[in-house]
Amino acid sequence: MAVRVAVIGATGVVGQQFLVALDKHPWFTVTRLAASARSAGKRYDEAIRDAGTGASRWLCDEPLPAPYATMLVEDAATFDPAGLDLVFTGVEEGDVARELEPRLAKQVPVVSTSSAFRMESDVPLLIPGVNADHVPLIDQQRQRRGWRGYVVPIPNCTTTGMAITLKPILDAFGLQTVLMVSMQALSGAGRNPGVLALDIVDNVIPYIPKEEEKVQRETAKILGTLADGAIDPLPLAIGATCTRVNVRDGHTEVVFASTRRPASADAAQAAMEGFAGDLEGLGLPSAPCRPIVLRDDPFRPQPRLDRNTDQGMATVVGRVETHHALGNGLKWVLVSHNTRMGAARGAVLTGELLVKRGYV
Amino acid sequence: MAVRVAVIGATGVVGQQFLVALDKHPWFTVTRLAASARSAGKRYDEAIRDAGTGASRWLCDEPLPAPYATMLVEDAATFDPAGLDLVFTGVEEGDVARELEPRLAKQVPVVSTSSAFRMESDVPLLIPGVNADHVPLIDQQRQRRGWRGYVVPIPNCTTTGMAITLKPILDAFGLQTVLMVSMQALSGAGRNPGVLALDIVDNVIPYIPKEEEKVQRETAKILGTLADGAIDPLPLAIGATCTRVNVRDGHTEVVFASTRRPASADAAQAAMEGFAGDLEGLGLPSAPCRPIVLRDDPFRPQPRLDRNTDQGMATVVGRVETHHALGNGLKWVLVSHNTRMGAARGAVLTGELLVKRGYV
Amino acid sequence: MAVRVAVIGATGVVGQQFLVALDKHPWFTVTRLAASARSAGKRYDEAIRDAGTGASRWLCDEPLPAPYATMLVEDAATFDPAGLDLVFTGVEEGDVARELEPRLAKQVPVVSTSSAFRMESDVPLLIPGVNADHVPLIDQQRQRRGWRGYVVPIPNCTTTGMAITLKPILDAFGLQTVLMVSMQALSGAGRNPGVLALDIVDNVIPYIPKEEEKVQRETAKILGTLADGAIDPLPLAIGATCTRVNVRDGHTEVVFASTRRPASADAAQAAMEGFAGDLEGLGLPSAPCRPIVLRDDPFRPQPRLDRNTDQGMATVVGRVETHHALGNGLKWVLVSHNTRMGAARGAVLTGELLVKRGYV
Amino acid sequence: MAVRVAVIGATGVVGQQFLVALDKHPWFTVTRLAASARSAGKRYDEAIRDAGTGASRWLCDEPLPAPYATMLVEDAATFDPAGLDLVFTGVEEGDVARELEPRLAKQVPVVSTSSAFRMESDVPLLIPGVNADHVPLIDQQRQRRGWRGYVVPIPNCTTTGMAITLKPILDAFGLQTVLMVSMQALSGAGRNPGVLALDIVDNVIPYIPKEEEKVQRETAKILGTLADGAIDPLPLAIGATCTRVNVRDGHTEVVFASTRRPASADAAQAAMEGFAGDLEGLGLPSAPCRPIVLRDDPFRPQPRLDRNTDQGMATVVGRVETHHALGNGLKWVLVSHNTRMGAARGAVLTGELLVKRGYV
Repeated sequence: MAVRVAVIGATGVVGQQFLVALDKHPWFTVTRLAASARSAGKRYDEAIRDAGTGASRWLCDEPLPAPYATMLVEDAATFDPAGLDLVFTGVEEGDVARELEPRLAKQVPVVSTSSAFRMESDVPLLIPGVNADHVPLIDQQRQRRGWRGYVVPIPNCTTTGMAITLKPILDAFGLQTVLMVSMQALSGAGRNPGVLALDIVDNVIPYIPKEEEKVQRETAKILGTLADGAIDPLPLAIGATCTRVNVRDGHTEVVFASTRRPASADAAQAAMEGFAGDLEGLGLPSAPCRPIVLRDDPFRPQPRLDRNTDQGMATVVGRVETHHALGNGLKWVLVSHNTRMGAARGAVLTGELLVKRGYV
Repeated sequence: MAVRVAVIGATGVVGQQFLVALDKHPWFTVTRLAASARSAGKRYDEAIRDAGTGASRWLCDEPLPAPYATMLVEDAATFDPAGLDLVFTGVEEGDVARELEPRLAKQVPVVSTSSAFRMESDVPLLIPGVNADHVPLIDQQRQRRGWRGYVVPIPNCTTTGMAITLKPILDAFGLQTVLMVSMQALSGAGRNPGVLALDIVDNVIPYIPKEEEKVQRETAKILGTLADGAIDPLPLAIGATCTRVNVRDGHTEVVFASTRRPASADAAQAAMEGFAGDLEGLGLPSAPCRPIVLRDDPFRPQPRLDRNTDQGMATVVGRVETHHALGNGLKWVLVSHNTRMGAARGAVLTGELLVKRGYV
Repeated sequence: MAVRVAVIGATGVVGQQFLVALDKHPWFTVTRLAASARSAGKRYDEAIRDAGTGASRWLCDEPLPAPYATMLVEDAATFDPAGLDLVFTGVEEGDVARELEPRLAKQVPVVSTSSAFRMESDVPLLIPGVNADHVPLIDQQRQRRGWRGYVVPIPNCTTTGMAITLKPILDAFGLQTVLMVSMQALSGAGRNPGVLALDIVDNVIPYIPKEEEKVQRETAKILGTLADGAIDPLPLAIGATCTRVNVRDGHTEVVFASTRRPASADAAQAAMEGFAGDLEGLGLPSAPCRPIVLRDDPFRPQPRLDRNTDQGMATVVGRVETHHALGNGLKWVLVSHNTRMGAARGAVLTGELLVKRGYV
Repeated sequence: MAVRVAVIGATGVVGQQFLVALDKHPWFTVTRLAASARSAGKRYDEAIRDAGTGASRWLCDEPLPAPYATMLVEDAATFDPAGLDLVFTGVEEGDVARELEPRLAKQVPVVSTSSAFRMESDVPLLIPGVNADHVPLIDQQRQRRGWRGYVVPIPNCTTTGMAITLKPILDAFGLQTVLMVSMQALSGAGRNPGVLALDIVDNVIPYIPKEEEKVQRETAKILGTLADGAIDPLPLAIGATCTRVNVRDGHTEVVFASTRRPASADAAQAAMEGFAGDLEGLGLPSAPCRPIVLRDDPFRPQPRLDRNTDQGMATVVGRVETHHALGNGLKWVLVSHNTRMGAARGAVLTGELLVKRGYV
């Protein structure tokens, strides 16, 4: 299989993570790169050079994969996707994505990390493993918009881990109420402007603008049901408080839930542990062995120790316990890698699912 | 007024904080110090010298107040409190406190930071400002145990800030359900062994042994009602998840509550802001101007910026909002200084209250 | 005494520190504020409000002193200093300072934290306590440039602590060679763009552009001799390596020196301890009790514990030892508060000296 | 090749790192484990379980390699090495090593991370790549002590990186003077007691007991010459100041050197870059591709980005520059992984060298 893909926004943080996630990919070949006009026409390694100091602004811990260094960067604003099979966009500004992605989607499939189209009624919000059954909503989108391609966004990185752990609980016991507190990693804030060390050393920041609304809305959509060409969101009483802590990578989330049917801690843990998701048997290259990895040690999961589990594609869970504050009360703690499963690698996995389902 | 006090456990972290809190106190004069046998018979400044390196193990940021340096440290195990008006104990091991405090309480009042007696039925668990009306339970204790003195513990440092913020909400709207996630400071773990930097750099630890049970039980007792010589705990559905983050001082707590009567965010905020507590007009030297300080900025409270508000004796609150996950749902974020209001200074304030109420 | 002063660059980090340093100052009254055109015409508290979030961008740990909140901010580019006695400039861009400061200096004295004029031959580079005898160079500057006022910059924050500790060693033993490694605080990098937490968590950055050259040049000038209307720099073999570490405030510097005459560790320590500097008896309000505070504990100085000594105006020194790697080899470690003695408060102290010497 | 090895001190931090370094090793097979009496007789996975919490005290980021989990731990105090080819000791207490290692060395070769025997005159202090020519000193040791085996220690982790970078400079230009400031990682302090987060957050600790003397003495021995059955230390004027910074792994060291013959920055860099060391062509499994990796970016090396270069076995160098503070002055910055090349993996590499040279 040789799927020709492009990465748009290739010089930014998310774009660079796309390049790492796509390096030596068995199905996808990156044949073109695009970014803003400032980078257009330059070799990739020149485009990421800091104008002031001359130092490379390659920001991933993994080294820049050699093949990209000499590729020419095109101008995203005038990028023509003809000849491509699939485009990944990691554009960080919502309004740029809102203009760019429909233009590309007229011709080719677009998998995006942007929030621009997540809540549109004809757009599936996919987490492979959780709601692959929402994929056919793409047909509505194409038909309604008259596009050859389509836009499929992935969720906010804070939504992802929680939705993955809620899915087996929903399936086994039903869900009434979810309350969540996140302790989010610095890399989730990116670098433009990002979080200053002065502001987070010896500190917690108790607010991330717009994050809580996204988590609440997106979760209900992801766990909803596709019927009659539309998604019926899960009726769920959900509240979230999102905070930033002094951790580089890996969001930690404390979840309190109330199920419809009683669930013991053991039964809840068994449901998560046995959760195969809807990827089983598909052989997607970026899929984790299992969507959820359980830890028995009550001191786990910890972001530093657990974020890289299964290449950062597994959600690691511990402290699955019952509590009496809510009826049928459960609680747990999860760690999800916000820049792997929660961003570029998660988008690549989504692309793989779309290939497998015949949408690429 | 010249109240003669002793500090037991004077060489430990909490004991040192007592010495700072009592330095130049207008009512209390520290006349004696005690610690374990290893320190007994030494001058205080020698007793805190590290045997290996010879360096001083004075651990507070404030310098060692000069008067203490030359005082002789007595052996806590054989300490005779005769002639004292009040004893503060900052003993860190629960079983030592369990043996030591009753022995002292036979003769003098004891205010303690230990958890040993918090849940005894004839022991009030005091937060000045919140439940001064529990003070008369001391009479039961004395009568039942035949002591001239008594033991009054202060709560766990994580309980304190939450209970203070719940009190005005309870009074104004009633309380049904409380769910709380704490992000606790390193100083709460002390130094024996404390938290290794290796374990918390770039990390969150999602578990603090026994902490959640303490918070749940203590909150219901503190917010309960004294009637017929016993405390009737508040019937409250309460759940807590306690975590450790990379912050030196100041516990951050995210609270979700469900009230009995509807409360708008403005009304809830007004209730907290107007909360005078039961210390108003008493003129206690360590009391904060107001128990709760509100911040309008959604990025507040932050532990580094807010923990020292009013000498670390105020609880700082922000993000007071309604939510729909619980019926009559409210939420807020608080920061409380765990080693000031939550420990030694809070115990000194309790001692002041007991003086004012004629119990010393 | 009522010296009328203005603060230019008042909305930036350094400008805010000037406002804190000048709050309730016994000599200086801030009568006017200026900043860039974006802030001009606004009340100060409005000018520092973040356009996006509406939150206050007051960045000091101390609260905004009330009197400044309602003052109108003027446009620095057209600011007329008539009627002022002294101007403090905390402009962060060198080229803005290079244009602005001469314009102001035509009329009034200017004390600046900028590097723009530090190395000009008719400009003294002052550290009160170290080289007050360079003050008369101002006369040359005025005469040569035909200004009523003048520009006096303070040194780079990394130069300051080292130069203060070198001065008594130079006076007592002479100096041949100095090698220094700094471990600099985050606040030294400011906020525009400042250091991202992503880049410094679990890390050291071994380079700060232009810093080492500044330290080397400035030190020789400060320790030089004023003769015949010019400063003869100290002939000193000096090398510096400047690094950034994960500390909020307080530069730590390790100094290796070779003296001209032999010095025991005790003699070197005594020279530093006995160093009164040239401020003794002047009664300057911002002067530290002594320029240098010595610590015997080999684990000191530490930036967190020692940076605030004497309001952050003292340089704290420890580990004064001899070594054999250089002839007459000495070494020590110092901590200097980079945003207090090393920036705005140091500039205020310089202003006080100029008042006392009759130059304001 | 099947070399039967044992790890003594297997439950400690260094012992665990040995197990990771030896996992799937092509030459060495771990056939036995030993630790203190407390662990003796238990399965390894039980021996590392925390008595209080029941949680596993496996402390490496890599998971516990499965084969070790079920091995029985023997008592180091009575351990009989008969049948083994080589023993690795990672005993953390010097006096235990001083008693234990000679007892083992009577029968088998012992490679140790302890400081106990480093400065003995008949003991080579080996850094493979730097002084493999010191290996024959083992013959003296065996003959003089009448042992079948021998003890070979590796240096202090702070010595290692500096000595590796000094070697090519010494060979090409000669060395007169070396001044070094280290910024050492937390893992170098171990866990017993280790560095408390309370002490290092927002801080630098300017002293590490005994470290500077070790670095100074060990460097001269390692760079010395083996002649007539003894090592003649390099005559070198050397001074070090060792500090602790808030970094998990990877020591950063700033080196100022004075060479005997002039060296340009380019020539010095070329000497380091071209340095093949004395391992070239030996095919040792744990050897880095090259001992030294150069970075051109002046912002490198950084411990977080560079410590894992070549499995943590390469020393990464940047900022190679000349300076005028010393005659023929050079300076550079290096990062060396203190628990890989600087500890267990470095010891394994030493064992490999001894096998290749016929000493095992």
